[in-house]
Amino acid sequence: MTRNPTFAILKDADLTEFRKILDNSGDVVDSSDDLEKYNRDWTGRYCGSATIALRPRTTEQVSRLLKYCNRRRLAVCPQGGNTGLVGGAVPVFDEIVLSMERLNRLINHDEVSGVLSAEAGCILETADNFVRERGFVMPLDLGAKGSCMLGGNVATNAGGLRVLRYGGLHGSVLGLRVVLADGTVLDGMGACRKDNTGYDYKQLFIGSEGTLGVITEVNIATPPLPQSTNVALFSVAIFEDIKRLFGQARRDLGEILSAFEFWDVESQKLLDMHFPDNKLPIRPGAFFVLVETSGSDSEHDQSKLMRFLEDSEAQVVDGTMAQDETQLRRLWALRESIPEACAREGIVYKYDVSLPTARMYDPVLALRSRLAHPAISQIIGYGHFGDGNIHVNVATQHYEAAVVAQIEPYIYELVRKHGGSISAEHGVGVLKAPQMGRFAKTAAEMALLRNIKTLFDPRGILNPYKVLP
Amino acid sequence: MTRNPTFAILKDADLTEFRKILDNSGDVVDSSDDLEKYNRDWTGRYCGSATIALRPRTTEQVSRLLKYCNRRRLAVCPQGGNTGLVGGAVPVFDEIVLSMERLNRLINHDEVSGVLSAEAGCILETADNFVRERGFVMPLDLGAKGSCMLGGNVATNAGGLRVLRYGGLHGSVLGLRVVLADGTVLDGMGACRKDNTGYDYKQLFIGSEGTLGVITEVNIATPPLPQSTNVALFSVAIFEDIKRLFGQARRDLGEILSAFEFWDVESQKLLDMHFPDNKLPIRPGAFFVLVETSGSDSEHDQSKLMRFLEDSEAQVVDGTMAQDETQLRRLWALRESIPEACAREGIVYKYDVSLPTARMYDPVLALRSRLAHPAISQIIGYGHFGDGNIHVNVATQHYEAAVVAQIEPYIYELVRKHGGSISAEHGVGVLKAPQMGRFAKTAAEMALLRNIKTLFDPRGILNPYKVLP
Repeated sequence: MTRNPTFAILKDADLTEFRKILDNSGDVVDSSDDLEKYNRDWTGRYCGSATIALRPRTTEQVSRLLKYCNRRRLAVCPQGGNTGLVGGAVPVFDEIVLSMERLNRLINHDEVSGVLSAEAGCILETADNFVRERGFVMPLDLGAKGSCMLGGNVATNAGGLRVLRYGGLHGSVLGLRVVLADGTVLDGMGACRKDNTGYDYKQLFIGSEGTLGVITEVNIATPPLPQSTNVALFSVAIFEDIKRLFGQARRDLGEILSAFEFWDVESQKLLDMHFPDNKLPIRPGAFFVLVETSGSDSEHDQSKLMRFLEDSEAQVVDGTMAQDETQLRRLWALRESIPEACAREGIVYKYDVSLPTARMYDPVLALRSRLAHPAISQIIGYGHFGDGNIHVNVATQHYEAAVVAQIEPYIYELVRKHGGSISAEHGVGVLKAPQMGRFAKTAAEMALLRNIKTLFDPRGILNPYKVLP
Repeated sequence: MTRNPTFAILKDADLTEFRKILDNSGDVVDSSDDLEKYNRDWTGRYCGSATIALRPRTTEQVSRLLKYCNRRRLAVCPQGGNTGLVGGAVPVFDEIVLSMERLNRLINHDEVSGVLSAEAGCILETADNFVRERGFVMPLDLGAKGSCMLGGNVATNAGGLRVLRYGGLHGSVLGLRVVLADGTVLDGMGACRKDNTGYDYKQLFIGSEGTLGVITEVNIATPPLPQSTNVALFSVAIFEDIKRLFGQARRDLGEILSAFEFWDVESQKLLDMHFPDNKLPIRPGAFFVLVETSGSDSEHDQSKLMRFLEDSEAQVVDGTMAQDETQLRRLWALRESIPEACAREGIVYKYDVSLPTARMYDPVLALRSRLAHPAISQIIGYGHFGDGNIHVNVATQHYEAAVVAQIEPYIYELVRKHGGSISAEHGVGVLKAPQMGRFAKTAAEMALLRNIKTLFDPRGILNPYKVLP
C-alpha cells in the first residue's frame, strides 16, 4: 500500500493551530514514546507512524479540529480504545490520531426508559457498572470491555456475547452526535425508541469504522438487569447435535436463553494445554456447548433449565450445570480463554465469519483437509452459534506467507458461496478492505458505498485506507 | 402544493413500453374505476390522480420499469397495502403507481435461524400465519396486518404492538433486495444476524417511504412463537401511576413482558359509547393499562403475573386478568377499538408522537386547555407506553380549519421542546413533510437527508412530495 499523495504533510503551523484549539497542552501528544500506544494496535500486527495524537474534550473541539484538517487536507485516524482486530483504529501512514479518550463523561441514565447518554470515550465496563448500580445492564458484552470505548463499539458495530438476547447495536443505539469530516456537527441525540422522521442516517455510522464521521456522543437503550443467571456446559458427539440442542434450548428456555456458545475439541485441547488449572468438568465430545440463561425469577429459570437438561439428554455426551458463581465463572472462562490459548501456540490467523448454521463449521473442516504445512499447530473453530458467527483460528509456530496464501482467498470464497459474511463482527478495517469488492459486496453495492463515502467525506480525510479498497 | 413541472406527462408510447415489460396484460391497470383503490388512501384524506398502476411480478420487471421511467423522467409512487396514515403511499398528482401486490411469494423460512425470505407484496398476516405453523411469529403486529404488506412495513419502519418485546425493524430486517430509481438492483439479501462488511446501507431504506428505492424482497428474523400468553387490565388514578406500574412490570415480569399499552378515561368513554357490547370489566380510573406477557411456560408466566398483581395493588384502582382466550381478545379489543371509536365521532385529527415517558401525556393536557371550539367532541390519548409513543386524537363533528390551526404547529413545538419525535411510527409522508425542517431535524441534518435523496434518486422520480419538503 502506498501513502495517498493528495494528503498534506503535517507542519509546525498545524501544531500551533491544534494547540490553540485544544487549550490544555496535555491534549496534544507529540513525543514518540507517548505516541507508541496510538500507533500500534494490540494484536501487534498493525503499526502506523503518526507524529501527533489529539485528545479533544468536547464535540466543539472535534468539530474545529476536523474543519481545520479538512481544509488543510490532513488525514485523520479516529481512535477509541484501540482494541480492534482488523487494523481499523490505528494509522496506516502518518494520519493524525484523533483519540476519544478524554471525551469520557457519563451524561445521564433515564430510569424509566433505560436510555444511557454518554460520551464516545467512555469505557464499556465503566458504563456497564454505572447502569448496573441502577438496575440495568449494557446490551453488549465483549472480551475487551475493560478498555474498549462506547464510540468505538458503535463505530465498529461490536457484537459479542449478548446479541442473541438483546439484538445488535442497530436496534439499541437510539441517538448519536457525530462530527463530519468538514466539521459539521450532526445533533442526532434522539432518545426515542420510535422516531420515523426521515432517513435513519445514524445507522450508517454504526459499523462505519470512523470513515464517515466521528461519533462524540451516544444514546443507547439498556435493558433491565437480570435477577438470575445460570450456565450449563455440554459435550456433544457431532456438529449436527449442536443444531438439535439449539432448537431444544429455544423451545425449553425460550425468553431466558441469553447465550449459546460453542467450541470444538481441538479448541479444548489448547485450553487443556495452556490453562490446565481450569479442568474440564465433563467427559469430552467432538464439540462443547455453553448455554446461559438470564431471567427475572431464579426458581423458574432453574426449572426451565432442568427441563432442558432432561429433554436434551439424548443429544449430549455429558453435561454439567454451575452450582455457584465460582463455577459459573470457570465455565465461562473456558469459552473466553480460547483466543488466548490459541495465541500461546505462536502466530494466529483469525477469521471471523458468519454462515447459515448448517454450514457454519464447513470452513474449519475445509481448511483442515486443505492445509498441510509443518508450521501449523492447530486449526480450531469456536463462536456464537445462535448468531451464525464462527471464529476460525489457525495457529502456526511462526509466520508463513505460504500458509496465508493457502487460506486466503479460499476461505472467503467458501463463505461467499454459502451466502455468509466474511466479517461477522470484527469489521473490515485494513485487513479485509481488499476483499470487499470480491467477497462481500456486488459491483452495484460497492459503487453505492463509495458514493456514500464521498457524500460524507468528499476529501477522503477520515480513516483512509480502511473499509473501502 | 403544485406539480413539479420537470416530470414528464405520460404518453401512449409509455403505455406500450410498460405493456412490453409486463407481458401479462392484467398487470397494467388503466381504467379509472380500477384506479380508484390505488389513488385513494384508506383514511380518505389523500387522493391522487394517477392514470396508470403497474403491478410487476419480478424484481427484474421493477428494474426495467424504473429504468424506463427514470430516463423519461416519469414520477413513480411505490405502493404496498396502502394502509398508511400520512399520505405516503398514494400519488399526489399523476405519479405512476407501482404496486407490489403481485410480488407476493413467500420464498423460504429457515427453521434454525428463523429467517423468513419473502417478496415485498406479501401480506403481513399471511406471513405471520406461515411462520406460526412452523413455530415462529412475525416480530411485528399492526392493526392493519390483514392488508399491509411486508415491503410497506419495512419502507415505513412500521412499529405496532410488539416493539417492546422484539425491538424495531432496524434490528429484525437482515437483508433487502432494492431497486434504485435508475433500475440498479441492490442484491443485499443477506440472512446473517451479524455482517460487518461496510456501511449498512439497507438501514436507509427502512423508513424511507419509497423515496430512495423500491424494496422487492425482504429477509426478516422471526422469533420463536410464545407458548403462553396472558393479558391483564388495570385502571389507575393518575398518569404517574402508569410509570410506577411500568417499573413494577419490568421488575416482576422481566423477560415475558410483551406489551404495555395505555389509554385515558376519555378514550374509554368513546369505547363505552360506540362499542357498548364490550363492557369494561373493572371499575374505571383516569387511565387504563393493558399488560401482556408472552412466555414459554404457562405456569411460570401465571406465577410472575400473580406476583405482579400483588406488588402493584397499591398503584391500581382495579384490575382483572383474562381467564381464557375469549376474555383475552375482549381486553385487547378495548385497546384496539379506540381509533375506530374516535372515528365514529366525526373527523379525527391524529397525532403520533414520542416523548420521554414522564412528559408523554403533556400534549393531551395542553391541547385540552388550549382548544375551545364547539366542533370538538373529544381529545384523547392512548398508545404504547413502553415505547414512549402516544397517539393524540382530536375528534370533531366536522372539519374545521380553525381547529387545525390551533393544534399545529403548537403540538409539534411542544414535542420538539421535550426532545420527542413528531412522528413516532406513522412516518412523514405528505402530512409531515412541511414540518421536517422546523420540528424534526436541524439544518445540518436536513442538508444531509437531501444529499442522501439526491445520491439515491438524482432525478427525484421516486415518491415525490413525500418525506422531504
